Amino acid sequence: MARPPRTDDLPIPRPDPRSGKLSRQVVEAIESGIRSGQFRVGQRLPAERKLATQLGVSRTTVTGAYQELEARGLLRGHVGRGTVVVGAPSDSASAAFPWSQRASSSARQAWQLSLGTPAHRADVIRFDVGWTDGSLYPVTELNAILREIAADAALDLYRPPRPGGDPVLREAVSRWLHSRGTEVPPESILITTGGQQGLNVLARAFLEPGDVVVTESPTFIGALVAFRWAGADVIGVPVDHEGVPPDLLEETLIRHRPKLIYLMPTFQNPTGAVLGRERRRRILDLAMRHRVPVIESDLYGEIYFDEPPPPPLKALDGAGLVIYQGSFSKLAAPGLRVGWLAAPPGAWPPLAAAKAFADLHTPALTQRLAARFLESPRLEGHLATVRAECRRRRDHLVSALRRDIPRISFRIPSGGYYLWAQLPPALRTEDLVPAAAAHGVMVRPGPEMVPERGGEGHVRLCFAGFEPARLTEGVRRLAAAVEEASQRVNGARRETAPTVSVV
Amino acid sequence: MARPPRTDDLPIPRPDPRSGKLSRQVVEAIESGIRSGQFRVGQRLPAERKLATQLGVSRTTVTGAYQELEARGLLRGHVGRGTVVVGAPSDSASAAFPWSQRASSSARQAWQLSLGTPAHRADVIRFDVGWTDGSLYPVTELNAILREIAADAALDLYRPPRPGGDPVLREAVSRWLHSRGTEVPPESILITTGGQQGLNVLARAFLEPGDVVVTESPTFIGALVAFRWAGADVIGVPVDHEGVPPDLLEETLIRHRPKLIYLMPTFQNPTGAVLGRERRRRILDLAMRHRVPVIESDLYGEIYFDEPPPPPLKALDGAGLVIYQGSFSKLAAPGLRVGWLAAPPGAWPPLAAAKAFADLHTPALTQRLAARFLESPRLEGHLATVRAECRRRRDHLVSALRRDIPRISFRIPSGGYYLWAQLPPALRTEDLVPAAAAHGVMVRPGPEMVPERGGEGHVRLCFAGFEPARLTEGVRRLAAAVEEASQRVNGARRETAPTVSVV
Repeated sequence: MARPPRTDDLPIPRPDPRSGKLSRQVVEAIESGIRSGQFRVGQRLPAERKLATQLGVSRTTVTGAYQELEARGLLRGHVGRGTVVVGAPSDSASAAFPWSQRASSSARQAWQLSLGTPAHRADVIRFDVGWTDGSLYPVTELNAILREIAADAALDLYRPPRPGGDPVLREAVSRWLHSRGTEVPPESILITTGGQQGLNVLARAFLEPGDVVVTESPTFIGALVAFRWAGADVIGVPVDHEGVPPDLLEETLIRHRPKLIYLMPTFQNPTGAVLGRERRRRILDLAMRHRVPVIESDLYGEIYFDEPPPPPLKALDGAGLVIYQGSFSKLAAPGLRVGWLAAPPGAWPPLAAAKAFADLHTPALTQRLAARFLESPRLEGHLATVRAECRRRRDHLVSALRRDIPRISFRIPSGGYYLWAQLPPALRTEDLVPAAAAHGVMVRPGPEMVPERGGEGHVRLCFAGFEPARLTEGVRRLAAAVEEASQRVNGARRETAPTVSVV
Repeated sequence: MARPPRTDDLPIPRPDPRSGKLSRQVVEAIESGIRSGQFRVGQRLPAERKLATQLGVSRTTVTGAYQELEARGLLRGHVGRGTVVVGAPSDSASAAFPWSQRASSSARQAWQLSLGTPAHRADVIRFDVGWTDGSLYPVTELNAILREIAADAALDLYRPPRPGGDPVLREAVSRWLHSRGTEVPPESILITTGGQQGLNVLARAFLEPGDVVVTESPTFIGALVAFRWAGADVIGVPVDHEGVPPDLLEETLIRHRPKLIYLMPTFQNPTGAVLGRERRRRILDLAMRHRVPVIESDLYGEIYFDEPPPPPLKALDGAGLVIYQGSFSKLAAPGLRVGWLAAPPGAWPPLAAAKAFADLHTPALTQRLAARFLESPRLEGHLATVRAECRRRRDHLVSALRRDIPRISFRIPSGGYYLWAQLPPALRTEDLVPAAAAHGVMVRPGPEMVPERGGEGHVRLCFAGFEPARLTEGVRRLAAAVEEASQRVNGARRETAPTVSVV
């Protein structure tokens, strides 16, 4: 049996930019090496940086390729051992059919975003995921409601409810909005299987391929995916401390003639920005003048740390051009997958049709549970707890960052789950994110959240899911990663600094 | 106050085929008449046939326009009074923003398919909907499981589970498939929020705009919508008594080079056809030779009336090119929205990514309920009851049709929920469906289920949802509608028969 080739001279051809995506070419070269038997199970592959240098590509390219091969079960990262071949495609039935080549480009991108960043060690602290932890779910109350539902469980939990949603929940959502100063009748509410489905339903209902959607920049990844899956182009308007500047928005409306504006006016994901009251009015005026409807995502509006935020755009919407989105995930618990759209009457039929062909309807059981919790006297107490605890976590993260990584800068969010961190100058997410994963802490890369290009100097940290001790530990790991990545970057810069002869 | 114009001289311009869809032009003309005050609330519009004649368009065009206006709340059909103006768009906030003009074309189509056929009377018998009724749900067993879950309810019902699905349910589905002779490991199962979402996930994962999908013709409407929403073209292969003829399929594969084949080999929806054993093998060979993966939808395989059907394609799939789809809706109850895809290993990652951005994940609560019922000792008894009762209902429908409408012909399905009925010669769905709705019975028009053109001589009847007495009454109403529509058609034919001078 021939000796496996040494790690450092893997026969991988340099990718050619004219032959398509570089990381795909690297994936195919390695997969074909494994398939042909050139690379064996147990063989160690070069470190990402080394292979990047060898192939003349960026480290991100190699990271992406390794991640995809890991996702396909061909490679695995081991602490201390680097990246190792663990599977051979010809061993399994899937080898006979080249599924991985058949994935749509959007599914490949989605894989990278959602699942394609496995950490290289156990006990990972996932600042990249936008949830609270279980200690902040109202489990006792939800269980009590569940027992009530089970005790008088009836047929209607199991039959297909109307596509628009369980009338009981639509009533409850309407009353909930009313208690918050926003009037939407039950028949204008559409229940969705969580907020993400709501975005897909909106995209289906109103977008055609080639349409333009305007969003904040940066914005929520799930919205970008939903709009792009419907074939739309997304144009971002950079947010400042008070959200979207109306003048910039107007320029964009004039220049790009979008089909929709998607905004998260309150505790924006990821920046935490709150659109000012005056801006809210001006933006509604602009939307009306340019006849562009507005999708207002208000998932975090109840998670305020100081005073309650300004009223939603929907509460100011006399013209019926705002579709408001809410969700049970941030009010109570993410596991039930219950969300809602509150639409002007004319917008409801296309939304209901898109919903019907998304999943027919949302389960009656989870709708009933959500309805009863929304009307429970315990809801306000629960929200007060969540606000206080998220505020404590924010404060703790802010202190830890200032103490351990003073070169990271940020605005302090006054609500929501996220902190949008600007990296030290010269450090980019593509340097930091893999280093952080190797140190056991995951953060969301800024570029994923920017509709066009940009965000390389930022990462998003979710502080809502961790007790202070874990926040401390996560920041400690992140500090080590920042240190390591900065040294590498400086080293690389010195190595590659051109010698300029001043003649 | 001016006298409203008489019904028969409504000032609606004749639509012009060069200006886009005819029914849309009729909608806009009527909406603008209502908006301008030309047509008043309470005013009666002409009967569909009369207006069709006046405007020189088909009756279907007018029916579609009236239905859309009804969906928007501007018109309502009243028994004995015809169609009446009930709303004025300028009265409501929605008037300020023209939402109805902003709906995507796919949402408009979906609305027509799913919701746009309101019946013109109460107490409607809905043979068009593909469900059993509540008397066939295992409510007692499901409630018992729900009480068990509620009693030991834990945190994991409320936290976001893994996107691939609850591991407990993935195990249960794997064991269920094993008990049916199909080997798929739990890690190759992906849980979806019902079967319809599974189709959208498949489409997202593997289709790009412009791709071709081959299906049976006729086929399931929800699959057509999902594939088209992903931008694909659908090509149908006509089924005969034994499903898709392999030679025809091969011609289609060669000619259209599809990305996917979508088949329902067992008790096909809507024809009830069962793909023969020999055809199953030949079709798998063809798929492998032409390197086209197969999606096998097996929702109805357990609802057999005689002997159990042949094994699924997936059980014969040595090459790993079949993705198998199952659902809890037909095994137990539709209201839980739990379905699954059983995929070859290489196909799982893109499916999981597409699922993650469809709705993040399926609720843990409904997954747990489905898992426990799938493993319940009561499942087999429940299925035996459903088979016996659906068979009884099929027999009853068959007898009633033969007795009351002998001019309708059909093959007797040996399983599933549906009967695909061929109308008497010269009668078309566009004549029958509105007449049936007016008589209080709804049926699915054949053309909705045919990927290209065709199906005008067929309707689909679902017999699974009704006790024999309701089936009898439904057929009685349908017979009256067939009679009435046939007379109209014959009358119209006589009126318009050209006088041919033989010189």
